[in-house]
Amino acid sequence: MAKPISIEVWNPSGKYRVVSTKSMPGTRWIRLLTDNDCRLEICTEQKTILSVDDILALIGDRCDGVIGQLTEDWGDVLFSALKRAGGTAFSNMAVGYNNVDVEAANRNGIAVGNTPGVLTETTAELAASLTLSAARRIVEADQFMRAGLYDGWLPHLFVGNLLKGQTVGVIGAGRIGSAYARMMIEGFKMNLIYYDLYQATRLEKFVTAYGQFLKANGEEPVTWKRAATMEDVLREADVISLHPVLDKTTYHLINPERLAIMKKEAVLVNASRGPVIDEVALVEHLKANPMFRVGLDVFEDEPYMKPGLADMKNAVVVPHIASASKWTREGMATLTALNVLGKIKGYPVWGNPNQVEPFLDENSTPPRACPSIVNAKQLGW
Amino acid sequence: MAKPISIEVWNPSGKYRVVSTKSMPGTRWIRLLTDNDCRLEICTEQKTILSVDDILALIGDRCDGVIGQLTEDWGDVLFSALKRAGGTAFSNMAVGYNNVDVEAANRNGIAVGNTPGVLTETTAELAASLTLSAARRIVEADQFMRAGLYDGWLPHLFVGNLLKGQTVGVIGAGRIGSAYARMMIEGFKMNLIYYDLYQATRLEKFVTAYGQFLKANGEEPVTWKRAATMEDVLREADVISLHPVLDKTTYHLINPERLAIMKKEAVLVNASRGPVIDEVALVEHLKANPMFRVGLDVFEDEPYMKPGLADMKNAVVVPHIASASKWTREGMATLTALNVLGKIKGYPVWGNPNQVEPFLDENSTPPRACPSIVNAKQLGW
Repeated sequence: MAKPISIEVWNPSGKYRVVSTKSMPGTRWIRLLTDNDCRLEICTEQKTILSVDDILALIGDRCDGVIGQLTEDWGDVLFSALKRAGGTAFSNMAVGYNNVDVEAANRNGIAVGNTPGVLTETTAELAASLTLSAARRIVEADQFMRAGLYDGWLPHLFVGNLLKGQTVGVIGAGRIGSAYARMMIEGFKMNLIYYDLYQATRLEKFVTAYGQFLKANGEEPVTWKRAATMEDVLREADVISLHPVLDKTTYHLINPERLAIMKKEAVLVNASRGPVIDEVALVEHLKANPMFRVGLDVFEDEPYMKPGLADMKNAVVVPHIASASKWTREGMATLTALNVLGKIKGYPVWGNPNQVEPFLDENSTPPRACPSIVNAKQLGW
Repeated sequence: MAKPISIEVWNPSGKYRVVSTKSMPGTRWIRLLTDNDCRLEICTEQKTILSVDDILALIGDRCDGVIGQLTEDWGDVLFSALKRAGGTAFSNMAVGYNNVDVEAANRNGIAVGNTPGVLTETTAELAASLTLSAARRIVEADQFMRAGLYDGWLPHLFVGNLLKGQTVGVIGAGRIGSAYARMMIEGFKMNLIYYDLYQATRLEKFVTAYGQFLKANGEEPVTWKRAATMEDVLREADVISLHPVLDKTTYHLINPERLAIMKKEAVLVNASRGPVIDEVALVEHLKANPMFRVGLDVFEDEPYMKPGLADMKNAVVVPHIASASKWTREGMATLTALNVLGKIKGYPVWGNPNQVEPFLDENSTPPRACPSIVNAKQLGW
């Protein structure tokens, strides 16, 4: 006999059966489903990652839609099971969907939703938090204080970096990279150097205007520069934040050669994807350069760290929490619920998946649309 | 026989004998003294705080000037010893000088220097670092990751606060409070509410202009408001940073009643003076409100923490490192050296102790002046 699986049932008499493989932050997503005639079952198993078998058990033999997680393997097995159960809708609680076999979803006629439009600022603020924590040695200083080692002010204790007037380097000036750049430029009067295959016209124009604004107010203007090569950024910047997409060209983008050209007291931040950094090389570099500091939200072998990283005082390491703000996570939960509900109800797909504010307003009924479906075209929607 | 005291001697044949009770960051301060005919003795004892007896031993029977620390007790005993040794100059490596009996210095004809003009931005950036670390739970997330507890992404893991669009409250909008306010307003598009006995005209004007600039660029403007009472700030703000002076009116400014009116998920930051917060009450509040978070650089019984604080996951605690950036600490060292050197050489006092950039330029000879002497008038200078 198979082991039972624990769930929590909301609105048991609802017409449509929707399953969420995890509890998600906030309650609005629950209300939106239950107010619209859905019976919602939330899996309450105390394990971090559900197996395909666990999810098959959750789907059962009648299920209209599932809200799933990036950690789950959504391929033909699950999508065909969902189809057999009469389901048509799936949504990942994430922007990315590298855990999803979209072709398999297409074959089974299942819509695949995701949650863009709510992560940019929260992710950029996490990169900024890692930057400041690393620059000012917050984690190691906190451990020292908590351990009772502080016995009086000392001139040399945890001396870090002043950001003002230094140079921030951004590799990949897309939506998140640009938002991060602006935080560091406007907040800390840093000058920008960036590398991107595409010109970040909007960012450049804004920084130019902001520099003029500062000057008009009698202050030192900030400057920007688009670098011809990534190496120029690594050589010149005091703080470097990585925001590229992960593909063959950016795998181990930070390697021993590139670490070697960075300033000895630079701060390196990665809240993009783990494999962008050669983590073994990074550990060696951190050992050899005690004033070089790093802030990492992602890891090459996530959820694990390469040997030695956990012992480095000049590293700040957090468990993939770039999108972990209340506003964003509750927004993601709402968007997944509305993706699934919209498909069940036969609503159209929303025009611009990056402008989802109307779905997030707690005080109004959301539009009758699916916020973001990645395979809408393939399904002939 | 008294115990020997360890020192390091620079330029042994220098005409003027200058003592520094501590090693200080950078080397320029050493070069400035030794290039100007000073024999410099730096105490290298491995103890955090030197006693009056230790310092008497360092002064000896011939000493022209001393660079000391905020942790030392500079009263009549030391100033009269310095006078007997032929000395005329003392400088604290700090802006504050509550460790110095200025009257005693006056009686002994000793100049008392301090180091304003280099701490504002570094201190404000530390307050910003504490804010972001607390808002995004960086320290507890780092400990979780380092302990190997992370086994996969979870919707509820370390969910923190998005700053954008929230309200930053500043209590005390002087030089540092205003610098901090601007970091949070410009960097994170927060709206400002502040409380100060004096109107922060310059800050208000800047934020108004910045709001207009954002609007002209098609963005949501930021706003500011001067609160009639401190309570208004505590009630309305999502993030509150304390920047008052410490006196009878601000002792335990944050007490149980005021903690009770703050938002349950607020972030409170203190990089001013420890006794501004009733720390016992704060620990109780942190226990009762797990989503309330605090970032502390200073403590009521520094260097100690009140019982329980070290166990709180919703606290970030660092050992009084607000001025701990390389730029600031090397600048402080330079200014102390130039205060002492200037007095020995009979230079005048610099006009504006907050505009000390000319003294800090590594590529030029510093002006022939004492950057900042707090009792110049009393000495008839």
